[in-house]
Amino acid sequence: MGKYSILDKVKPEVRSINSYTLREYDYEIKINQNENPYDVPEQIKREILDFALERSWSRYPPFDPVELREELAAYTGWNPEGILAGNGSNEIIQCVLEIILYPGRKLILPSPTFTVYKLIGTVLGGTVQEVPLKSDLTFDCDAIEAEMADSGDVIILCSPNNPTGCMYPQDRLVRLLEQNPGTVVIVDEAYYEFSKETVAGLLGTYENLIVFRTFSKAFSLAGLRVGYGLMNPALAREVNKAKLPYNINFFSIAAAIKLLQNRDILSGKIDELIAEREALYTAMNTINGVTVYPSRSNFMIFETPYDPEIIFRELLKDGLLVRNVSSYPMLSKALRVSVSIPDDNRRFITSLVRIMGELETSE
Amino acid sequence: MGKYSILDKVKPEVRSINSYTLREYDYEIKINQNENPYDVPEQIKREILDFALERSWSRYPPFDPVELREELAAYTGWNPEGILAGNGSNEIIQCVLEIILYPGRKLILPSPTFTVYKLIGTVLGGTVQEVPLKSDLTFDCDAIEAEMADSGDVIILCSPNNPTGCMYPQDRLVRLLEQNPGTVVIVDEAYYEFSKETVAGLLGTYENLIVFRTFSKAFSLAGLRVGYGLMNPALAREVNKAKLPYNINFFSIAAAIKLLQNRDILSGKIDELIAEREALYTAMNTINGVTVYPSRSNFMIFETPYDPEIIFRELLKDGLLVRNVSSYPMLSKALRVSVSIPDDNRRFITSLVRIMGELETSE
Repeated sequence: MGKYSILDKVKPEVRSINSYTLREYDYEIKINQNENPYDVPEQIKREILDFALERSWSRYPPFDPVELREELAAYTGWNPEGILAGNGSNEIIQCVLEIILYPGRKLILPSPTFTVYKLIGTVLGGTVQEVPLKSDLTFDCDAIEAEMADSGDVIILCSPNNPTGCMYPQDRLVRLLEQNPGTVVIVDEAYYEFSKETVAGLLGTYENLIVFRTFSKAFSLAGLRVGYGLMNPALAREVNKAKLPYNINFFSIAAAIKLLQNRDILSGKIDELIAEREALYTAMNTINGVTVYPSRSNFMIFETPYDPEIIFRELLKDGLLVRNVSSYPMLSKALRVSVSIPDDNRRFITSLVRIMGELETSE
Repeated sequence: MGKYSILDKVKPEVRSINSYTLREYDYEIKINQNENPYDVPEQIKREILDFALERSWSRYPPFDPVELREELAAYTGWNPEGILAGNGSNEIIQCVLEIILYPGRKLILPSPTFTVYKLIGTVLGGTVQEVPLKSDLTFDCDAIEAEMADSGDVIILCSPNNPTGCMYPQDRLVRLLEQNPGTVVIVDEAYYEFSKETVAGLLGTYENLIVFRTFSKAFSLAGLRVGYGLMNPALAREVNKAKLPYNINFFSIAAAIKLLQNRDILSGKIDELIAEREALYTAMNTINGVTVYPSRSNFMIFETPYDPEIIFRELLKDGLLVRNVSSYPMLSKALRVSVSIPDDNRRFITSLVRIMGELETSE
């Protein structure tokens, strides 16, 4: 590059971020992204595809996806005027941070948690203050309360937390909301349908609370990218100003509406996955050398005495793609596995038993 | 609200923005959003829908849409490493502004232009400096060069410009790029396929140039929201850090790829729309009292001596929904009409002739 590099115009906090890249692997069983192993039922897919065939693709989506917001209101019990939908909940989380953060303002995050929060906060020029989990990998509510009282402008609590699966206790959340009425408290309930515990009931009482949900997990729509936020309607009007017009395409809107209308069909599979999670936890717990952490989500983390990269490679030899999360703070020995169909889970247990046995023998 | 209002936490520049709302109207002919009147051909739709039936919806889209970037490289002649795709080009424009703007930095915009640029720049806390068009509604290149030399950090030139249809002359763009090597110069070619003139050939020479395109206009995909940016690969790596992971859903990616592969099928319709644009311009030019501005896009603006709201309402009586753009700077007498199929255009001309005749008589 010449005398002037256009990269000099890029904000230094952006330059300092390492580019995120994802390696591709060959696998038979994909248990690395907390996806739902069950596809949308074929009959529902066909109904959405029939609609798509008739609808003109050259026309913009609705300016305001009213029908989706109303179905979401029926599902969540919250006011449709306080509901915003996006391309995954990430998009609306980004909008919230955009209208609040600027250099000097502080985003508080437990650590480790979902990495995208920190990324967005950093790009927006905010200060990111991380509060470590406790050694048992649950939230350190005392430390979070102290940090918030000191200097928080906005906090994001992923509950159940990705990648650890822990929940933020509701009584401690109430304290946080009460003690910090001028601070935005975001609870990301991406895995709510697997925990069956929500704080959405507090929205009517606390105008500083925002709850996020997604269709990417329990609703089997990761491929179509739909999420939503629930918040005070006055705050929603402000967040909406940061949302790009026509943000969600007509196809994803139609799919989300159809799935909400057919949500009873999905609930059996969700219950099966919850039961499988418990069975998987129990089975892993019996494997010598494996430490597994309880989870309220559709994934869990486990530790072994060995290099997680070795465990990852050995599982991959058996066709199982998990997530090596050892680069996260506090998780240097850990991997994350998503709960899948019973056959996949059995194969995972069989493989892990083999690997642990072989590694123990070779010592 | 109580003692603390959570709205106090919202950035003042966001509070000051008026919420954008869109009124709904009944119409027969929609010529208000510069959409392509021709839907994607049914055979192409069916191929995409067949793919969607087979593909699992519960799995995330590709982390990096390599196949789409490679098809875009073949179409544009630009390096795939310097191509980023988003939910409409707006999303990637937002990413570019996110990595550059902060309070004190300046976004330069011709005025009037596409309103979303100013909205994004304001939310991000940048200073927006508008440079009026000349009285003939073409770009004031001298004024833009002066403003850039003075204080620009980034500029967006929509060319052809929405809503006026004018092009930024390529020789003046070269001067702008040469004189401001440390400033990001964005050219939004959303309507390129209708102007058939691009500055993408300058990308290899000027690392400060970014060119945007969209599938929402000529490619008939407004409903699926796909756009892209072409830029220096090193700059693309930085912009990519502001892009949310898995931003485009699998269905929109598949549709964009399929349309690029079948682009020859679309070109006949594009040529027809260009011919219709010229015919529409000529016909409007003959109507007494109507001033129409030449356009290189698939829309044009026209002025009459009457209140634009009256013209808008009278056209709507005949089933024609146009866009009243009179709230834009310099356009207090103007409306914008999209070029449609020949029948629609004829109906528009007939209606406008009637309205102008009646208004003249009633004076």
